[in-house]
Amino acid sequence: MATPPVKVYGPPLSTAVSRVLVCLLEKDVPFQLVPVNMAKMEHKKPDYVKMQPFGQVPAFQDDDITLFESRAICRYLAEKYPNKGTAGLFGTNPLVKASIDQWLEAESQSFNPPSSVLTFQLFFAPLMKLKQDEALIKQNEAKLEKVLDVYENRLGSSRYLAGDEFTLADLSHLPNTQFLVEKTDKAELFTSRKNVGRWWSEISTRPAWKKVVEMQNA
Amino acid sequence: MATPPVKVYGPPLSTAVSRVLVCLLEKDVPFQLVPVNMAKMEHKKPDYVKMQPFGQVPAFQDDDITLFESRAICRYLAEKYPNKGTAGLFGTNPLVKASIDQWLEAESQSFNPPSSVLTFQLFFAPLMKLKQDEALIKQNEAKLEKVLDVYENRLGSSRYLAGDEFTLADLSHLPNTQFLVEKTDKAELFTSRKNVGRWWSEISTRPAWKKVVEMQNA
Repeated sequence: MATPPVKVYGPPLSTAVSRVLVCLLEKDVPFQLVPVNMAKMEHKKPDYVKMQPFGQVPAFQDDDITLFESRAICRYLAEKYPNKGTAGLFGTNPLVKASIDQWLEAESQSFNPPSSVLTFQLFFAPLMKLKQDEALIKQNEAKLEKVLDVYENRLGSSRYLAGDEFTLADLSHLPNTQFLVEKTDKAELFTSRKNVGRWWSEISTRPAWKKVVEMQNA
Repeated sequence: MATPPVKVYGPPLSTAVSRVLVCLLEKDVPFQLVPVNMAKMEHKKPDYVKMQPFGQVPAFQDDDITLFESRAICRYLAEKYPNKGTAGLFGTNPLVKASIDQWLEAESQSFNPPSSVLTFQLFFAPLMKLKQDEALIKQNEAKLEKVLDVYENRLGSSRYLAGDEFTLADLSHLPNTQFLVEKTDKAELFTSRKNVGRWWSEISTRPAWKKVVEMQNA
């Protein structure tokens, strides 16, 4: 078998890398995962920074393009392969697409900031033997609660965030939520909310995401 | 003249509202600006929250759709009116579009967090007679410097962030940069960097943006 043209650089444990991996698996696009040793600062070396100027993971290559930013890579994949694997990840008409994009931006602007802080403080900081910042945890938990209240209401009238179909908007929530539900004591932020809990059960048991979690635990 | 179908809810002084306004003006799409009195908490009232569930500005309506999230609204406008006003804001082929999207995400994920904190702390906090947080200012100035170093390098080999054309990626930087350059003592973060300074002169003097600044100062 020929080497797949798609390469993803970075560890599956990174939330941004795993966002891209689950998108590739949903779209059934073969790829090669290229390790980047972040402990050895490989992501700051000149050759890597040529691909990813911010020195972050992931970097992404396809035939004719190099990209960074996980959400931009997911949009690119969904647009390039509309009919491969899970169809409709980015909608089938402009109005549906705009609705998906709006909830993907809600993830990026409202959900991601507090949930990233909590994931780092509650999961990665202890792993890395760093001191936790209790005030920061409290402040971001309160922010996340407000976002999840909006989601609870939305998911009471809609199966998924952007409508009746699983889309990039839902997919983009998987990485941080996985850590918060499975690796911290904050699972009930999600499970205590009836509709959010139902949604989380649905999206987290999709085969593509279960495969990513296996890669993270390997 | 008939009332335009496009309505934008919120004050032009909001960075997210002004991002949408400059996009509408670039695309030459007529719109109606509907005031939202944030001092009177109109953005938290039930009728408004039906349109914008997070209770933030802007909310946006077109014929058949209600949207929130400024960057999602800009993408929608550029896709709905590809040939109206400034063409090419969101590219003309999938590869160019992916490059624009990647730099738009860089704005959203890397540039916006520190520049929003600085805009709030250095411009809005004094206006609102709130105490400034010196440690937070210092920390976010350092973060913004790193981002602008990446931009300086990029803009040394490319006229605009995503390539030779002005796109949504550049447009999205206008609101925060305007405040930082014109209303705070941090202008030289931008002007001391040769390529960033050249880029800022080009994008900030576009007629559409000058019109938004007039609306902000009216």
